[in-house]
Amino acid sequence: MLGNRAVAYKGPGEVDVIDIDYPTFELKDGPGVNPANVGREVRHGAILKTVSTNICGSDQHMVRGRTTAPKDLVLGHEITGEVVETGPDVEFIKVGDIVSVPFNIACGRCRNCKEQKTGICLNVNPDRPGSAYGYVDMGGWVGGQADYVLVPYADWNLLKFPDRDQALEKILDLTMLSDIFPTGFHGAKTAGVGVGSTVYIAGAGPVGLAAAASAQLLGAAVVIVGDLNESRLAQARSFGCETIDVSKGDPASQIEQLLGVPEVDCGVDAVGFEAHGYGEDAAAEAPATVLNSLMGLTAAGGALGIPGLYVTGDPGGVDEAAKVGSLSLRFGLGWAKSHAFTTGQCPVMKYNRQLMMAILHDKVQIAKAVNAQPISLEDAPRGYAEFDAGAATKYVLNPHGYLNA
Amino acid sequence: MLGNRAVAYKGPGEVDVIDIDYPTFELKDGPGVNPANVGREVRHGAILKTVSTNICGSDQHMVRGRTTAPKDLVLGHEITGEVVETGPDVEFIKVGDIVSVPFNIACGRCRNCKEQKTGICLNVNPDRPGSAYGYVDMGGWVGGQADYVLVPYADWNLLKFPDRDQALEKILDLTMLSDIFPTGFHGAKTAGVGVGSTVYIAGAGPVGLAAAASAQLLGAAVVIVGDLNESRLAQARSFGCETIDVSKGDPASQIEQLLGVPEVDCGVDAVGFEAHGYGEDAAAEAPATVLNSLMGLTAAGGALGIPGLYVTGDPGGVDEAAKVGSLSLRFGLGWAKSHAFTTGQCPVMKYNRQLMMAILHDKVQIAKAVNAQPISLEDAPRGYAEFDAGAATKYVLNPHGYLNA
Amino acid sequence: MLGNRAVAYKGPGEVDVIDIDYPTFELKDGPGVNPANVGREVRHGAILKTVSTNICGSDQHMVRGRTTAPKDLVLGHEITGEVVETGPDVEFIKVGDIVSVPFNIACGRCRNCKEQKTGICLNVNPDRPGSAYGYVDMGGWVGGQADYVLVPYADWNLLKFPDRDQALEKILDLTMLSDIFPTGFHGAKTAGVGVGSTVYIAGAGPVGLAAAASAQLLGAAVVIVGDLNESRLAQARSFGCETIDVSKGDPASQIEQLLGVPEVDCGVDAVGFEAHGYGEDAAAEAPATVLNSLMGLTAAGGALGIPGLYVTGDPGGVDEAAKVGSLSLRFGLGWAKSHAFTTGQCPVMKYNRQLMMAILHDKVQIAKAVNAQPISLEDAPRGYAEFDAGAATKYVLNPHGYLNA
Amino acid sequence: MLGNRAVAYKGPGEVDVIDIDYPTFELKDGPGVNPANVGREVRHGAILKTVSTNICGSDQHMVRGRTTAPKDLVLGHEITGEVVETGPDVEFIKVGDIVSVPFNIACGRCRNCKEQKTGICLNVNPDRPGSAYGYVDMGGWVGGQADYVLVPYADWNLLKFPDRDQALEKILDLTMLSDIFPTGFHGAKTAGVGVGSTVYIAGAGPVGLAAAASAQLLGAAVVIVGDLNESRLAQARSFGCETIDVSKGDPASQIEQLLGVPEVDCGVDAVGFEAHGYGEDAAAEAPATVLNSLMGLTAAGGALGIPGLYVTGDPGGVDEAAKVGSLSLRFGLGWAKSHAFTTGQCPVMKYNRQLMMAILHDKVQIAKAVNAQPISLEDAPRGYAEFDAGAATKYVLNPHGYLNA
Repeated sequence: MLGNRAVAYKGPGEVDVIDIDYPTFELKDGPGVNPANVGREVRHGAILKTVSTNICGSDQHMVRGRTTAPKDLVLGHEITGEVVETGPDVEFIKVGDIVSVPFNIACGRCRNCKEQKTGICLNVNPDRPGSAYGYVDMGGWVGGQADYVLVPYADWNLLKFPDRDQALEKILDLTMLSDIFPTGFHGAKTAGVGVGSTVYIAGAGPVGLAAAASAQLLGAAVVIVGDLNESRLAQARSFGCETIDVSKGDPASQIEQLLGVPEVDCGVDAVGFEAHGYGEDAAAEAPATVLNSLMGLTAAGGALGIPGLYVTGDPGGVDEAAKVGSLSLRFGLGWAKSHAFTTGQCPVMKYNRQLMMAILHDKVQIAKAVNAQPISLEDAPRGYAEFDAGAATKYVLNPHGYLNA
Repeated sequence: MLGNRAVAYKGPGEVDVIDIDYPTFELKDGPGVNPANVGREVRHGAILKTVSTNICGSDQHMVRGRTTAPKDLVLGHEITGEVVETGPDVEFIKVGDIVSVPFNIACGRCRNCKEQKTGICLNVNPDRPGSAYGYVDMGGWVGGQADYVLVPYADWNLLKFPDRDQALEKILDLTMLSDIFPTGFHGAKTAGVGVGSTVYIAGAGPVGLAAAASAQLLGAAVVIVGDLNESRLAQARSFGCETIDVSKGDPASQIEQLLGVPEVDCGVDAVGFEAHGYGEDAAAEAPATVLNSLMGLTAAGGALGIPGLYVTGDPGGVDEAAKVGSLSLRFGLGWAKSHAFTTGQCPVMKYNRQLMMAILHDKVQIAKAVNAQPISLEDAPRGYAEFDAGAATKYVLNPHGYLNA
Repeated sequence: MLGNRAVAYKGPGEVDVIDIDYPTFELKDGPGVNPANVGREVRHGAILKTVSTNICGSDQHMVRGRTTAPKDLVLGHEITGEVVETGPDVEFIKVGDIVSVPFNIACGRCRNCKEQKTGICLNVNPDRPGSAYGYVDMGGWVGGQADYVLVPYADWNLLKFPDRDQALEKILDLTMLSDIFPTGFHGAKTAGVGVGSTVYIAGAGPVGLAAAASAQLLGAAVVIVGDLNESRLAQARSFGCETIDVSKGDPASQIEQLLGVPEVDCGVDAVGFEAHGYGEDAAAEAPATVLNSLMGLTAAGGALGIPGLYVTGDPGGVDEAAKVGSLSLRFGLGWAKSHAFTTGQCPVMKYNRQLMMAILHDKVQIAKAVNAQPISLEDAPRGYAEFDAGAATKYVLNPHGYLNA
Repeated sequence: MLGNRAVAYKGPGEVDVIDIDYPTFELKDGPGVNPANVGREVRHGAILKTVSTNICGSDQHMVRGRTTAPKDLVLGHEITGEVVETGPDVEFIKVGDIVSVPFNIACGRCRNCKEQKTGICLNVNPDRPGSAYGYVDMGGWVGGQADYVLVPYADWNLLKFPDRDQALEKILDLTMLSDIFPTGFHGAKTAGVGVGSTVYIAGAGPVGLAAAASAQLLGAAVVIVGDLNESRLAQARSFGCETIDVSKGDPASQIEQLLGVPEVDCGVDAVGFEAHGYGEDAAAEAPATVLNSLMGLTAAGGALGIPGLYVTGDPGGVDEAAKVGSLSLRFGLGWAKSHAFTTGQCPVMKYNRQLMMAILHDKVQIAKAVNAQPISLEDAPRGYAEFDAGAATKYVLNPHGYLNA
């Protein structure tokens, strides 16, 4: 039996690399595994040798202690791998395939999966619709920041890259297909971005940058990214975005300088519930800031895509309302402007094949847009810390050296 | 020159029938007219002799003193009429046509009108996108609860009924095309209602009942309507809806009894910002109640259609937040369930022709569904009062006796 | 081992009930089985005891000798059953479930299945995308006009009815979910039918009648059905359709009498390649008649839904062009009218759950609309003959007596 | 009164520059004017001083004598201009505006215009829905290859460029908004082109090249253009398209070399009814070639966008069927592959604003893609001749020297 190292949550502000069991075709008990999932047979699963696995902003919510994640929870839901073993029910995925794993775990057999809503699969998480690897309250599927990982319903979930050599050559781009590229794309799509749109994206972290690259790919005329973090704004400018430093106040006047009008067609919230205020309020967390700001900045008839995470419970919330996921929203303003709002996990499978095609044919440079940097698995704690400190970097763990070429 | 009687707002809780000028092809100064609109030429307009004009729930917000509406503002945005005069630029609408007037005033020439977003026309209201007849802060177009009314951009705005006799025969149904039928339909459509859907509609006032009739027309499997008002619930049952008395608590368990699950596919908010609590809290206004409840009652992946009005300012709001249109929303819950939310005025023109066809061919009995009752213009004050007291009745003013046949 | 009787094609104009093997979880060699499919393991399959299985118009193409179907091909792709055995990879479907089987066989794992295009699944038919039970050139999956039948990818393909007793009570309606109800519905949807539409449906066979019932369910204002067969037209009138006897000439003038204009919004071709001419040409087969007629009868901007089958090879075609599936189409007319055309097998899974809901909640009486009549399995040859002779009847085989209650 | 020179059709193969009347706000009798339109008041019109006006492939159908166009018909439906006079009913368009004119003439008041179907406006052409400037059987609106031209319904039809100087700087790109850029875009959209698509475009004339540039703008992964004309293929390669010389045989094997599979996701017909055969049949006109080829080349589940013109009457057709616009189509093949087909004039207004934004913000170089070349009005006959001979050039007439800067 092979060994298996993994990145685990150890307590607020702390992650470590630990040894865990090599996966088998069964979901065993462990930190964070829902009792109803313990012992679940996974004959439809595949075991992957991890090619690359990225640190995600939503992992940080757990690491900051903003959730009920238990000690030793294995992290990681952005996974690209090489298939090393398949369960007896796997028919089309083969050993040796290089594959992208959508972060949403989905059964491929329920009503929601049949309707392309894989972000809210009904059969994988006993607590509620929707699941993900290595995430608190998501059923207990073991995270993929590890040497090896089990992927259930492999024929359904895995996206096979058509050519191994081509895939490994572009792997730093392709690794973004597991989450942030589709998530940013979903944000842009649900904000109504199309050819000729003007777009404002709140947040220049990896999802915001991916939304910006997606908006460009969709033909947007002008893509504006706002953040408090100057190095992340510089990253956005590096691939042609306009930027706004929101620490200098509400973006409306800056948008007006860029466009001649103080509003855009489409608004994307790539920040979520840990938002901060603007201008002199920038130091304080203010969870409704981004949504309220977007209602002001988005023209009547526009839409808001909201890939940024909002949660049902936040022990570290700024007030009682925030602790249960309630926000004070200027809904009257949104209503007066006939806004539409789309929320929720991105259903990755709806987009990953087409985005893979765009990468393989050089229509987008997503790794460059988000400043992807490979680091070793052992360096994961450093990656988490630097990312949390605001580095304009997307950290990609490289446990087996596939990314060294 | 003919006389012109009209229903006007006189102060909180008070409306009266007053004499106003017969319309001309110019928007003259008067109560509530935006200075930038005073003197505006309306060569593209038509003068209608009012066939029928309905009292609307959103009129009640003004009458209750919940807005800044000035004294003597002429009310009425639900208008059906006979064309008696046309401006020099009107080409296709003819004197003698019986027509329905969408409550949204639209120019038919701006970007939004070209995209079927007539609820947020850019050229008719100097304050913001979107306008309506007889409504505060909407530009000052004179209301239609009157003997005669001016309709601008007549070729664009008016829906001509194909046959005069047929129209007058079904006029009590057709009068609902100016607002509540399309508005309810828009609520159902944007909630994703289709063949086989399960639907919960919060509110059994005329818009809620129209949404229920629309959901049936769209092929819904089960339509459930919730309200505090038993006579309105009885009205909903009269055409095949299931009902829930929300004064008896949160609807979830009652939905579970009906459907076997405590959630529906589609949620419609036909209440808006003057919502009350549930169960023992039913006496108190609680503006976020309906939206928060709908996020609980609508299944993951579902959508919320929100035709109920939310405003940017409410002098009578229950607290400081409500006074500026802010609500404390359980947005984390909506996000976890991947909900989509659609707000805003219904763009009536997008739906009125097809709904007219459904009426003319007896596919829907909308007048019966909302319990339409014609009353005389002089009786408008009584109609307002009874409607405000919770009558399960849609009052239709009948200034010229067209509805007497 | 249980016995298994089945309806088989014996030669042009001839079907018979024969004995075949009881199914196992493997696709064995036999009449019409593609060599590449022989020996295929079906661990993901379920064996059904047939509750009901219908004779379909597309079966008649084979029976009339218009295809290359081999002798002893077991017929039947409209199947409803009770699960009696499941393969080792089946997780959610259970023995005892009463289920509807979409006639399209689909893997639930390929790109097309993931995009809801189950009518062109890439993994079940070695010859081309798309497959069906008991059909020539569709891979060789054994037909379901039998006592027992094997359904592959059971968790994906089967629609479980929520309650056994309720299902058996409405089984004559629910049996239409396997093919003709979704197929008719797809025809109506792709023709753009919505609330208030005027619709012309060419063909009053079961698919045409199902399209008519679907158009009503979708809220159409007027549904007009045309055919040469007076008893089928009477059937259409029985549930509220207008009808046109096309043996009396082109439908345009008859449509004008009904609607005041000679065109409809939406056209449905429920006839396909074995179409006949109109008026005095009605006796002769003329495969392009229906499509050319629909381009004339459908208004500019309208769409044509084409559930009627067109084939790539027809040994019995009226001329060389027809033999290879070429038609002489008035495409210039369609182009001038900006028509859109949608062809192909209905992807049943896209619609069957919602149509089931409509049936279970009494929103549609599809069995009555198509005049469903249960007959015994032994009577299948009579059913084929009467149906071919133009009976206004949908024959439902009842091998085990489930429909006797 | 100013003079007005214009390009007119003089007979098969012949165009000339003639003197015509300066426009007034009335449609006067003249060559090709429908009697029912003679004397029509155009108070809603604007008179434009032509900034640029392009020669279009569809003009060539008339010039080649393939239509019933009368002698002295003034040509030209691709018009960009400066407003020099407005009728009394024009409210928003102002003298001095630089505007693009959609080639479709539309009233902005009928059902189709309200539904964004401006290509089939009901009120501008007495013969049928849909109209265009300077085109046979389109109502008789005078063409715009002239010094001055009248545009009816100016507030509705005209797209104003936001800034005069910026517009004149990019005028060679912006002039493509009147027809071929939206037309190519419509072809790509209706073929289902999106991010990651593989696309085959039949025809490398200006519309084909515009479709190719549009497909790139929409994020296509691979855009392949096929033609017989090597200089046009070189033009396609100049901006990153793959190309196929169809004189060397059916494109399938060449597509397979490029993509690994012999089919694409999306097919665009940018040729229309004057198509030629492939390979050794390339010399002969064969009107169904392109459509039949696209059904072969487009994968199951794909769509065909058909901006290429097909006509209802073609005096020069190769056979009796072609003369009435009938084609022998392999419809059985399309049906087996579940293809969808979208035909008709592009409704320019649906796309021109967003494409303008893409041009103004440098997201597309459409003038370069189609090799736009300004020539003088007097040189129009040469432009027609060279274009007809296959020049890989889009000729832009420049009557007043706006394009000299």
